[in-house]
Amino acid sequence: MAKKKLNIGLVGYGFMGRTHSNAYRKVSNFFENDHVPVLKAVCGRNEAGAKAFADKWGYESVETDWRKLIARKDIDVIDICTPNDSHCEIAIAAAEAGKMILCEKPLARESNEGLKMVAAVEKAGVPNMVWYNYRRVPAVTMAKQLIDEGRLGRIFHYRAKFLQDWTISPELPQGGTGLWRLDAAAAGSGVTGDLLAHCIDTAIWLNGSVKNVSAMTETFIKERKHNLTGKVEKVNIDDACAFLARFSNGSLATFESTRYARGHKALYTFEINGEHASIAWDLHDLHRLQWFDHKDEGQLRGWRSIHVTDREHPYMDKWWVPGLQIGYEHTFVHQVADFLTGIDTGKPAAPTFRQALETQRICDAVLESAKTEKWTDVKVDG
Amino acid sequence: MAKKKLNIGLVGYGFMGRTHSNAYRKVSNFFENDHVPVLKAVCGRNEAGAKAFADKWGYESVETDWRKLIARKDIDVIDICTPNDSHCEIAIAAAEAGKMILCEKPLARESNEGLKMVAAVEKAGVPNMVWYNYRRVPAVTMAKQLIDEGRLGRIFHYRAKFLQDWTISPELPQGGTGLWRLDAAAAGSGVTGDLLAHCIDTAIWLNGSVKNVSAMTETFIKERKHNLTGKVEKVNIDDACAFLARFSNGSLATFESTRYARGHKALYTFEINGEHASIAWDLHDLHRLQWFDHKDEGQLRGWRSIHVTDREHPYMDKWWVPGLQIGYEHTFVHQVADFLTGIDTGKPAAPTFRQALETQRICDAVLESAKTEKWTDVKVDG
Amino acid sequence: MAKKKLNIGLVGYGFMGRTHSNAYRKVSNFFENDHVPVLKAVCGRNEAGAKAFADKWGYESVETDWRKLIARKDIDVIDICTPNDSHCEIAIAAAEAGKMILCEKPLARESNEGLKMVAAVEKAGVPNMVWYNYRRVPAVTMAKQLIDEGRLGRIFHYRAKFLQDWTISPELPQGGTGLWRLDAAAAGSGVTGDLLAHCIDTAIWLNGSVKNVSAMTETFIKERKHNLTGKVEKVNIDDACAFLARFSNGSLATFESTRYARGHKALYTFEINGEHASIAWDLHDLHRLQWFDHKDEGQLRGWRSIHVTDREHPYMDKWWVPGLQIGYEHTFVHQVADFLTGIDTGKPAAPTFRQALETQRICDAVLESAKTEKWTDVKVDG
Amino acid sequence: MAKKKLNIGLVGYGFMGRTHSNAYRKVSNFFENDHVPVLKAVCGRNEAGAKAFADKWGYESVETDWRKLIARKDIDVIDICTPNDSHCEIAIAAAEAGKMILCEKPLARESNEGLKMVAAVEKAGVPNMVWYNYRRVPAVTMAKQLIDEGRLGRIFHYRAKFLQDWTISPELPQGGTGLWRLDAAAAGSGVTGDLLAHCIDTAIWLNGSVKNVSAMTETFIKERKHNLTGKVEKVNIDDACAFLARFSNGSLATFESTRYARGHKALYTFEINGEHASIAWDLHDLHRLQWFDHKDEGQLRGWRSIHVTDREHPYMDKWWVPGLQIGYEHTFVHQVADFLTGIDTGKPAAPTFRQALETQRICDAVLESAKTEKWTDVKVDG
Repeated sequence: MAKKKLNIGLVGYGFMGRTHSNAYRKVSNFFENDHVPVLKAVCGRNEAGAKAFADKWGYESVETDWRKLIARKDIDVIDICTPNDSHCEIAIAAAEAGKMILCEKPLARESNEGLKMVAAVEKAGVPNMVWYNYRRVPAVTMAKQLIDEGRLGRIFHYRAKFLQDWTISPELPQGGTGLWRLDAAAAGSGVTGDLLAHCIDTAIWLNGSVKNVSAMTETFIKERKHNLTGKVEKVNIDDACAFLARFSNGSLATFESTRYARGHKALYTFEINGEHASIAWDLHDLHRLQWFDHKDEGQLRGWRSIHVTDREHPYMDKWWVPGLQIGYEHTFVHQVADFLTGIDTGKPAAPTFRQALETQRICDAVLESAKTEKWTDVKVDG
Repeated sequence: MAKKKLNIGLVGYGFMGRTHSNAYRKVSNFFENDHVPVLKAVCGRNEAGAKAFADKWGYESVETDWRKLIARKDIDVIDICTPNDSHCEIAIAAAEAGKMILCEKPLARESNEGLKMVAAVEKAGVPNMVWYNYRRVPAVTMAKQLIDEGRLGRIFHYRAKFLQDWTISPELPQGGTGLWRLDAAAAGSGVTGDLLAHCIDTAIWLNGSVKNVSAMTETFIKERKHNLTGKVEKVNIDDACAFLARFSNGSLATFESTRYARGHKALYTFEINGEHASIAWDLHDLHRLQWFDHKDEGQLRGWRSIHVTDREHPYMDKWWVPGLQIGYEHTFVHQVADFLTGIDTGKPAAPTFRQALETQRICDAVLESAKTEKWTDVKVDG
Repeated sequence: MAKKKLNIGLVGYGFMGRTHSNAYRKVSNFFENDHVPVLKAVCGRNEAGAKAFADKWGYESVETDWRKLIARKDIDVIDICTPNDSHCEIAIAAAEAGKMILCEKPLARESNEGLKMVAAVEKAGVPNMVWYNYRRVPAVTMAKQLIDEGRLGRIFHYRAKFLQDWTISPELPQGGTGLWRLDAAAAGSGVTGDLLAHCIDTAIWLNGSVKNVSAMTETFIKERKHNLTGKVEKVNIDDACAFLARFSNGSLATFESTRYARGHKALYTFEINGEHASIAWDLHDLHRLQWFDHKDEGQLRGWRSIHVTDREHPYMDKWWVPGLQIGYEHTFVHQVADFLTGIDTGKPAAPTFRQALETQRICDAVLESAKTEKWTDVKVDG
Repeated sequence: MAKKKLNIGLVGYGFMGRTHSNAYRKVSNFFENDHVPVLKAVCGRNEAGAKAFADKWGYESVETDWRKLIARKDIDVIDICTPNDSHCEIAIAAAEAGKMILCEKPLARESNEGLKMVAAVEKAGVPNMVWYNYRRVPAVTMAKQLIDEGRLGRIFHYRAKFLQDWTISPELPQGGTGLWRLDAAAAGSGVTGDLLAHCIDTAIWLNGSVKNVSAMTETFIKERKHNLTGKVEKVNIDDACAFLARFSNGSLATFESTRYARGHKALYTFEINGEHASIAWDLHDLHRLQWFDHKDEGQLRGWRSIHVTDREHPYMDKWWVPGLQIGYEHTFVHQVADFLTGIDTGKPAAPTFRQALETQRICDAVLESAKTEKWTDVKVDG
C-alpha cells in the first residue's frame, strides 16, 4: 500500500520546532498510517538560522515570510511554533488558505483570540489540533482509559501542580529569544498560559468541565531588564498562580504553578481521587503511573507503581520491550501519529482548536479571578 | 538530684488519652528533667471504662466528674482529652483552680471559645500548652531549625495537605464514641478543625502569620445515621476543605484536607520553597526529611532523603542508634519532655493557648470564607 | 482476671538493656496477657552504672554479679544482654537454676557454644528465646503470613543485605564499651554474627533451611587501636561478608553485610521472588512492605507500597490508627508479648535457642567457607 | 563544512536492528560530527522481511547474504545485529574486507571466539566497537566522571543486578525468532552473556579489573519445547546466575541476574560504595542518579535523587530542557555519536572489541566457576 505524503510547513524553529520536527521524522518508523509526513519547508525571519535548521533536520526548503509559506501549493499542513502573540493571525490566514493546522499550546493569548481561530478553522473545515502533548504520555493516556472505564467511580478530588524554579534569579532578563515567555506582550500571561494550561487541558480531558475558580497570582520579581529594549522594565507576567476550582461533576480541585519552586525543574503532577480508586502521575518520572485500588484485598492495599512500558500499555507496543522507558519527545510522536490516524479515518485527533478553547477560557477566568479577588465562572458558549 | 513529682489528672481516655498516657510513662526513661509525671488520676463518665483504663496504664485513681478532679489538691496538671465541645469549660475551670493545663487540639470549636480560654490561663498565670504534636516530629523540628537559620532565604511558597479516606462509605454513621469528629456539635467543624488545624499550626510556626484566605468546603455525603439519635440526619461538618492563603512574608500557600482521598490514611505533607532551598515532609514516612539545596554543586543537585535518626538530629540522641526509626507516639513524648523543660526553666513550651488561638482564628477565617465565597482576613488582636 | 507477675532479671544494661526494658514496661499497656513483666533486678559489674539505670527504668534492685542474680528466688526470667562471649556461660547457669531465659542475638559466638546452650535449656525444660526482633516488624510478620499462605508459589530467589557505614574511619578504636562488636574475642565475628545473623534468621524463617554456602569476607582496616590494651592491634573481625547460598527448596540466594557502605546506617533489606508474587522490605522504612502480585490485572501490575499500619496488619490493632507508624522499639514489645503468650499457652515463642542454633550453624559455614574459599555445607544434627 | 557520509550495512533487523537504525537516523539531528551515517543497506535471510524493514527505516538497498554485503564497495561500516553464534564469522570477514565494525553485545559466545575477533580487527586496523549501550545513559556516564574525579575515594563495594521475569512460564518455548536467547547453541549462555555481560561491562569501566569469582547458576525449568525442532528438549542455558567477585582494587562485589524475579522487567541496578561517597543507579528510572556524599554537612546528609536532565549533565545539552527525560533509545544515539567522534578524531570510542573481550573472559570465569564450584581466576593476556 503506497503511503500518501503529507507536506509539513513549520513556522518557527525554536525549542518546539525541534520537538515537532523530531516527531515528524520518527513517526513512520514506529507507527503505521496511510499518510507520511514530509519535511517540506521551515519558515523563520532569520534566513541563516532557518537554513541551518533545515539542513540539520532535512527540510527541503526555507521561507522567511509565513504568508509565503501559507501561499505555497505544495504545503498541506501549517505547524505554528511561534510565540503566542502570532498564533491567531497565522492560524486564521492558514485556515483561509485551506491548510490543515497544528498549533503549539496555548491556543492563544486569551480566549477572544482563540474564538476567532476556532471560527476560522471551522468555517474552513480543515483538520486542526493543538499540541497539548502530555495527553499522549502513555501513563496519562492510561489514566484516561481507567477513568473512562468507570474504575474510579464518583470523583471527589483533583489536584495538579506544575512547578519550576528557573526564574528565581533577579538577574534573568525578560523578553527576546528564549525568554519571550517572561514577556506578557508576547506570551499573554506567565505560568497560567505556559504551565497551568497543560494542567487544565489534562484535567478537563480526565475530569470534565470546570464551573468556577478562585485564584491568586503573584509576580515575585517586579522588574527585570528587558532584552528587546535594554531597559529595566516592569514584569507583567504572573510568576506564580494558584487556584481553587469546582468541576461540573461536583469534585473539588486545587491547581498551582510557579517558576519559584526551588528544586523542581518541570514537576507537572496530578492526582485524582475517586470513590473506588486513585491515580497519580508525575512528569519527572513520566513512565510510571501510581494506582491505588480499594478493591484490592484489605491488608494488601497499597499504591502500585506501574512501570508503563508493557506492550499492552498505550502506545508502548510500538516501541521497545518491557522495562525500557521512553521519554518526553515520544509524546509528540504519539500526537503526530494520532493526527495522521485522524486524517486517515476522518475522526479528528484531540484536542481540536475548539476543545483547546475551553482551556483558554479557564485560564481567562483564573486571571480574572486573581485580578478581582472573586470566584469567577468559566465562560461557556451562549 | 531528687526529681519533683508532677501529678497528672487526665480527662478523657479515648485515643488521645492513650497517646498522652504513654508519653507520661515513657518520658523519664529517655529524657532528663527535674520533674517526673505521675499518673495520678483519670476521669471519665463511664466508671468501669475509666477503671479499666486506669488499671491498664497504672493511674492511681479514677474520677467520673471532671469538676471533682479539678478540685483535688493532689493534681498539678489537668490534661484535656475530651471532644472539642468541652475544652473551653474544663480549661477555664482548671485555670481558675490554678492547675497547669494541657489541652488536646484544636484549642476550641472556634476562636471566641479560644479567646476565653486564653484569658483564663493568662489571668491565672498557669503553664498551658496545646497538643499540636507534629511540631515534635524530629524531621519537622529540624525543618524549623533550618528555616530559622535562614537557609531557605526568602520564602515563595508553602503547601500543605492532610488527606484521609476513612469516611467515604455512606454507611458510616456520625456522632457518638469514636465518631464525634463527624458531628459538628461536638467537633465544631470537620476536617478544618481536625486536620487543617495541624497543617496551620505547623505552617505559622515555620512561616509566620497568615494575612487572608480564600476557601471552599464540601460535604460529599449529605446525610448519615446519627449514633446518638438513631436517625438519619443532615451532616453538618466539612468533609473536605481547600484554601488559598497569603502569608505576611509575601509567600503564597495552598492548603487542602479531606477524608475522601482514596488511598491516603493520614497523609499530612508540607513543602516549603525558598530562594536557596526547599523542604518537604510526609507523615506517612515521618522519619525522613526531603531537602533540596541550591548551593550544592550544580550537576549534583537533587532532593536529599534525610533519614532523621542520627544523634545530631532533634531529639534523636535520646532514642536508639542511627537508622532505627521512631514513630508517631514519640512526638507526644517529646512534647511532654519540652513541657517539663518549660516548667523547669520557666520558659513555656509552645504552642501555648495564645499561640494556638492564632490557628483557631485562621480556621475561623477559612470557614467564613467558604461560607461567603470571599477572600477573608484573619482576625488579629485589637 | 488477676495478672501473674513475671519477675525479670536483666544482665547487662547497654543498648540492648534499654530496648528490652522499654519493651517490658510497655507491653502490658498495649497487649493482653496473663503475665505481666516486673522489672525486678538489673545486673552490671559497675554498681553506680547499674544503679543509675535501675533508677531511670524503675528496676527494684541491682546486682553486680550475675551468679547472684541467677541465685535469687524472686527472679523468673534471666535476660542476657551482655556481649556474646558471656552468653553461653550465663545461659547454662540460668538453665541449671531453672530460670526462663531470653538471650540477645546471636545465640553465641559459634555453634559449639550454641549447642551447649540448647542442651542446657532443653534439659532444664525452661522457656527460652533469642531476640531476633526483626521477625516482629509487622511488615516482616506479614511477609511470613503471605508466604505461608502459598501466595508466592515456588520460590526462586532470596536476597538480603545489611549495610552500615559506621566503621569506615581508621581512627575508630576497637574493643571496650560500645565497641566490643569490633573485637573478635568478645563478639566471635564481625558483621557475620552481628548483622548477617539477623538476615539469616529471617531468611530461614521465611524460606526454610540453607544447604550450602560460598562466602568471602574482608577486613578493610587491618589494625586499630584497642581500647582495652591501649595499643594498635590487628583487627580480627570481618568488616564485610558476602555469600551465595542454596536453600533446600531449590531457591538461590545472595547475602551481604558490611560496615563500609557509605550512606547506609542500618539498611537491612530482603527480597523474595516467587512464581506468583514477590516481596521486598527495608528496615529504613520498616512500616512498609513492597508487594508485587502477578495475579493482578496485566496492565495494572506494579509494586505496591503497603503502609503496614492498619488494624488488620500484624500487631497493629494494638497501637494507633491507620497511617500512624510505629518504629524499631516496637519489635521488642511484640517479642515480649509473644513470649508472654507462649508462657500463657504453653506454645513457645520463636525463635527458641534450638531454632537460633540453625542461624549459628549457617554463620559458622559462612566463616568456614570464607576461610577455605570452598562451598561449605551447613551442619545438621545427627 | 560539508559532512562526510558513512555508509552503514546492517546485518540482522530484529530488536537490535531497530534500535541501531533509529540511532543512525537521529544522531545528526542532535549531535555535530564530521560524518553522517547513511542507511545504505540492510541484510537478512528473509528477503521480504528485510525489504519491509528497509522501507520502514529508509535503507537504500537490501541484501540476503551477509557476505555480499561485506563485499560491497559502497559500505563503510558493518553493524552486526545477528544472534551471538554468527558474530565471530561475520566480524572476521568484515575485518578482512577492511570494514569498520560495530557488533552487538556480547562480543561472542565465549572468549576464544572473542579473541579471534580482536585479532582480526587489530590486524585489519579498522575502527571497532561493541554496543554496550548502558555506558551512555547520562546518569551512568556521570557516575564514571564522579569516580574518575576521585570523589568516592577508596572503593569498598560494588553490587549489580539485572533482574527480569519473562521466562517463568513453563509454556514458553526455546529457540527461533525472538527466542534464540533461550537456546544455548545460538546464545552461548543464558543470563550470563545476555544480562550479566552488561553489568560486567559497566563494572570494569567504573571499577577496574576483576581478579576472581565464585559463581552459581541454575536452570529452573529443565525442559522446554524447542521452536526449531518442535520437540521438548533440555534447556541448556542458565536461567539465573549469581557470583561473588574480588576486584583488583581490593573491593568486594556481588552480581546477580535472573529471568525469574517476578515483578522486575529489566531491573539493571548497580551501587558502588566508596570511602567518601556512594552512587546507585537503576535502569527502570534511568534518568536519575542516586548520590550520597559524606562531605555534606552532618545532619543534612542523605541520598540525593539527581534528575539527570540538565544541560551540564553528560549528553543532555543535546536534547531538551531540564526536567524532560530521555529514555532507552537515546543510549544508542549517544553511542553512535561517540563512534563518529572517534572516527573524526582518531580516538576510538569504547568499548572496542579488545575492551569487550575482558567482559567475555569474566563471563567465561563465571560459567567455569559455576560448573566446578570453585573460585576461578579471570584469564589475562600473556
